This record gives sequence, structure tokens and C-alpha cells, in this order.
Amino acid sequence: MAKIGIIGYGITPFTKDDKKIESILLDSAKELFKNNQKINRDDIDAVLVSTNNNSKYLSPILSEMAGIQPKIAHSIENLCNSGTNSIVSAYSYIASGLADLVLVTGAERYDSPGSVLDWDNSRGEYKHPIFWASLFAKSYKREFNISDEQLALVSVKNHKQAKENPNALSNKTYTIEDVMNSKKITEDLRLLDCSRSCTGSSSIILGSEEKVKELSENPVWITGIGQKTTSAGFTKNTSFSSMESTKQACETALKMSKKNIENVNVAEIHDAFSVCEPMALESLGFINEGHGMDIIKELHLTNNFKINPRGGLIGCGHPLGATGIAQTIEITQQLQSNANKRQVDDANVGLIHNMSAAATSSTVLVLEK
Amino acid sequence: MAKIGIIGYGITPFTKDDKKIESILLDSAKELFKNNQKINRDDIDAVLVSTNNNSKYLSPILSEMAGIQPKIAHSIENLCNSGTNSIVSAYSYIASGLADLVLVTGAERYDSPGSVLDWDNSRGEYKHPIFWASLFAKSYKREFNISDEQLALVSVKNHKQAKENPNALSNKTYTIEDVMNSKKITEDLRLLDCSRSCTGSSSIILGSEEKVKELSENPVWITGIGQKTTSAGFTKNTSFSSMESTKQACETALKMSKKNIENVNVAEIHDAFSVCEPMALESLGFINEGHGMDIIKELHLTNNFKINPRGGLIGCGHPLGATGIAQTIEITQQLQSNANKRQVDDANVGLIHNMSAAATSSTVLVLEK
Repeated sequence: MAKIGIIGYGITPFTKDDKKIESILLDSAKELFKNNQKINRDDIDAVLVSTNNNSKYLSPILSEMAGIQPKIAHSIENLCNSGTNSIVSAYSYIASGLADLVLVTGAERYDSPGSVLDWDNSRGEYKHPIFWASLFAKSYKREFNISDEQLALVSVKNHKQAKENPNALSNKTYTIEDVMNSKKITEDLRLLDCSRSCTGSSSIILGSEEKVKELSENPVWITGIGQKTTSAGFTKNTSFSSMESTKQACETALKMSKKNIENVNVAEIHDAFSVCEPMALESLGFINEGHGMDIIKELHLTNNFKINPRGGLIGCGHPLGATGIAQTIEITQQLQSNANKRQVDDANVGLIHNMSAAATSSTVLVLEK
Repeated sequence: MAKIGIIGYGITPFTKDDKKIESILLDSAKELFKNNQKINRDDIDAVLVSTNNNSKYLSPILSEMAGIQPKIAHSIENLCNSGTNSIVSAYSYIASGLADLVLVTGAERYDSPGSVLDWDNSRGEYKHPIFWASLFAKSYKREFNISDEQLALVSVKNHKQAKENPNALSNKTYTIEDVMNSKKITEDLRLLDCSRSCTGSSSIILGSEEKVKELSENPVWITGIGQKTTSAGFTKNTSFSSMESTKQACETALKMSKKNIENVNVAEIHDAFSVCEPMALESLGFINEGHGMDIIKELHLTNNFKINPRGGLIGCGHPLGATGIAQTIEITQQLQSNANKRQVDDANVGLIHNMSAAATSSTVLVLEK
């Protein structure tokens, strides 16, 4: 299979700003071009926009604003994993020979229509993602005898890590007590257990092997890709204590990259809600079912940023279409030893886990330097 | 480059029905599976949804309804050429090795939000596509000394051809006088010069060479792909009498397929408005600038369905996300000698032209049997 890599990236702070989606998109693309002055915009073959925003024709609009006249231009949407879907699509355009250089830009406003799962009328008014997350939390706690206090550590750890990320929505740190005392939203989840919708943008540029060698001094390669959709409605999930689509996606990605999960030195995990982090660690194969919190506790005690170094969705905020790209940027920075105070030791192999709607679909990427 | 082909298709009548987008999507997918019983849904690696509808997560929803658990699942939007963008994306997933079998389903409701070009505030209230089309018509008529009566023939011809298409929105035929007497909407365009928004769905399934040989007795191959975006706002167009993005996309597609425009036996042209058909014929290289109507006149007189055999957008209606896929289905049927009364003689090489927003972006595909 063709060798395809990451040439550069740009990212903006995640905020609650009320800006037009077109401006938000442009912000991180401008940042990317500022960071990578060797890239000639005339060489960009495709511009893919990742968003849940309802505006149309955003790729040609971004292209025009950024001074690009691409061959391929369109938007991609799949709720919360739109970003990694766009990266995989970019990969396929390059691997197919239709493109050599692809810009992927994700952006969202704080009031994204993707924040409500509007289609599932069987759930009546319970359309906010917090309702599937509550079901997950209840099931996971019951099955593995885990308490709310234990799960609260995910938020404590990720906020601590987000403090070292200048682009994170939150720069506050919290104690277990703070999480437990934060507003109770459902029987099983409190405010600080949740990632928050926000305004943000992230851009990445992928290239063929030749382009990567020409334009990057510190290349990072996409060596594994796995994706799986099991259903759309979470009530079709076979388990509420594990993530079937994540298991399958991870298996495919590791097989493609010829790696084992033990080889992964740093990972971005889709912690939309606190319970998602231990569940995902288990479904990815880092540890046996029911023991995800053991990893999180150990890492927190030793101040090791291996899991969600940028602060996760809980610490960074979750601008849906930008999240998967921001996760990929973090792993790229880690593999380039360019993550400042968030840097993980010996980061050679990184993994990204990005999912939608109660893990009914998942993407897993493996990156290597 | 890998050999990738069309294994099967399904299409629904284009109507003014008020149905949910999920049901509309499913309609043509069901049709596809009914027509192609050898396809095992477990073998489908990707489900791509082409639409301008604001609903989210439509690919997993369609997948669940259709009994598919794909690896890759997302929506694609680029206004009126969302359909061919989705087909090219499917092609790239297969050519890259990430997929062997890809379902592409396009659907739209009659009240699609893609029917209004909402982003271009510089145009004040003039946001309906008819305003760029009027500019095109005025410029084209002036530059090449063409009259409204002459352009009206496009609608006459395409409605005549649509009468032989059981899925077309319109089954009426019209005279030049009928077109001229239809409601004048702008100084330069009448009601019958326009394609109409409608409800419709079309599905196509693409496969690797191996899958095509296994599953199709009458394969059609995608041998040429060309795409170009010049801008988003039509006021950036260098000409209002020709289509620059179409020229470049066609050149790329013909080069890839090692064909000349003279080799094309049958073509689907994006006649969103009557003036688009002669302009596109010229920009595609079928004839010199200013002479597109000569072809249309000749074909109409000889009752030759070579251009827009299914009746074009004007005769069929224009369900945005479904159009490019419906065009591709028509060319597939033509190359399979399966187009009934619409059949063109010696159809060996077919071309599809699908564009968005005043031809600021275009896709051209070449298909061969």
C-alpha cells in the first residue's frame, strides 16, 4: 500500500466565539499555511471540509478564501467522527492516485446541529448524547463495580493535561470533589463528566510519499486505518459496557500497521463523557474489560500524559468536525517531539480513536514517525 | 491505475413527495438490492450518502435500515455535484485498497436547503441559482447572437426525451411556443427554461475489478475522472459565456481515459437551465464556442437522444444529491444497451457532466463498457 503522511497542520484555540463557520474554517487553514511556508497552494489537489454545520458548498468557499483552486472539493459529515472520516478520505484520494496533496479542514460552531441526535424519534425527547452516555455509565458501573468517584478521575486527569494545551477550551484544574459537586445532569453524569460543544477549527495537510519527503523535515506517516459502523441507533448496541465498533476498527488498524496495542506509546481517545475513556481503553485492547480505570489512575499518579495528552474532549472542548483532526494533530506533535509540556517519552507509535453516537461508528488511526 | 466499475444501480421516480430523507434514501437502495440479488450486504465496505439535506449521520442510518455494517460511512455534500463527488470518493476508496465494494446513495427532498445559495451575501436577495443563470443567458445570447426562441429548444428536446423516462418528474412535451409562453421569471429565463427541485433518490454500487467480474454480467468501467473548482462565488468566473471548471475537468477526464471528445457516443450534461446545455457542450469540446445549439438542433431534428437521453435536469427534475448518480445510472444503462426507447446507437463510451453553482465546480466522468 502507498505511503502517505502528514506534512503540516494548523489549529486555533477552542472557544465559545460566535463567528461565521466560513471564518472559523479559514482560521486554522491560515495557521497551517503560516506554519508551512514551503507549501505551494497551486499544488493542492483536494480540499475536504469536515463539519456538522448546515451551510453548503463550504469546501469551494474555503478554497476561494484560501487562494486554492482544487480538483476535488466537498464536505464530509458523520457527526463526531467527521474529522477522521475526512482524513481517511484524503488518504484514499492520495493512495488512489487522484491527488498528491490534500488539505483537510474541520470546523464547528458552539451551537452545532450535530450536538443533538435529532433522527431517533424512538427516544422521544432524550436526544442529547448525554442520554446514551448515562446508559453507558450506568451499565459500566454496575457491570464492573465502579463508582462515580472513580470515573470522576477521567475529568480530573484530562483537565490537568488540558492546562498544558494552549488551545484547550478549559485551563482550569479540578479535584475529584469538584467533579462530584458539579451540577448533576442525569442520575449518572455530572457537568464535569461531559465534553462541551465549542467553536474551533483544525487543519491538516496530507501528501504522497514524494510530497511528504519534499515538504516535511519531520514526517509522520499514517500506517494503520480501521473503521466500523455497527448501527445508527445506540439501542442496537450489543453491549453498553464496551464499544464493538471500536474493537473492530482497532483490530483492522493494528493489522494494517503490523503493530500490537503494546507498541502504542501515545493515544488520543474519544472521551466525549468520562465513562468513554476507560471503556475505549478496554475496547482498544490496552487492558482487560473492567480495568480501564487502572490505567487512568496509574497515569494520573505518575503524571504520564500517554492517554489524551492534549486534555481529551473533556478538557479541550468538542467542536465536532474539528475534533478528529485536532486529535491527529496532537499525535503528530507527539511523534515529532514537539508537544512541549505535554510531551510523552519515546513517542514512536501513536493511535487516534474517534467515534460517533454511542460508538455506533468508530475510526482508529495508527501514526508512526 | 486500478480498474473500477459499476456493478448495479437502483433509482426511484422523481416526484414532489413529502417524505423523510431517510425513507427517500432507502427507496433507491432497496431498488438496487432488488435488481442485484447476487450482492451480499456483508461484503459492502463503505456506504456514502450524497445529499444537501441538513440531517446528520445519514450513512449509518441508511446502513442500519438496509442491513449493512460498513467500515466506511459518511455523507458528502458539494451542492449540485454532490452525486459525482460521492462516486469519485467511492472510486478512491476502492483504488486505495480500503474498500472493494461501495454503495453510493444520493437523495434529496423537493425543499432542499441546497436550492438557495445562502452564503453569498454580496448578492443581497439574489440568492436563487436563477440569478446566475440569467447572467449566463444574457451574456451567452449577447456574445453569440442567440435568441430566447433558440435556447427554448433545449427544454423542448429534453422534455421530449424525458417522456421516455419512467422516472422523470415531467412526462409532458412542449413546443417552442409553450416555453416562450411559460411564466417569465427573470428578464432572460422562463419557467420552462429551468430544472425543478424535486424529491428523488438514486443508488449505485461500485466495485474493484475482481468484484465487478464476480457480480456483474454486463460491466461498465469508470475510465476517466476530472474535477475542478475555480471559486465559490460566480462573480469570480472569468467568463459568463463558458465554463472554465468544466473545460479543465473534461480535459483531465479524457486524458485519464485516453479518449477524445469525438469518441463519446452518449453524454449526460448538467442542464440546470436551458443555457447550460449549449455552454457545456462547448466547454466540453463537442463544438466551438457559440455553436452548441447547432448540435442540439441537429439531434432534435433527427430524434437522436445522444445528449441527455434521460431528459436532463430540465425534464427529469433536479433532486440535488441524487442528480449526479442518476446521470451515471443513465450512462450505465446506455452502455449496457438497456435504455429502452432512450437507447442511443453504438453506445461504447459515455460521459457525465455534473456541476455546481454557475459551474464554479465541475465533475466529468468517462464510462466505458
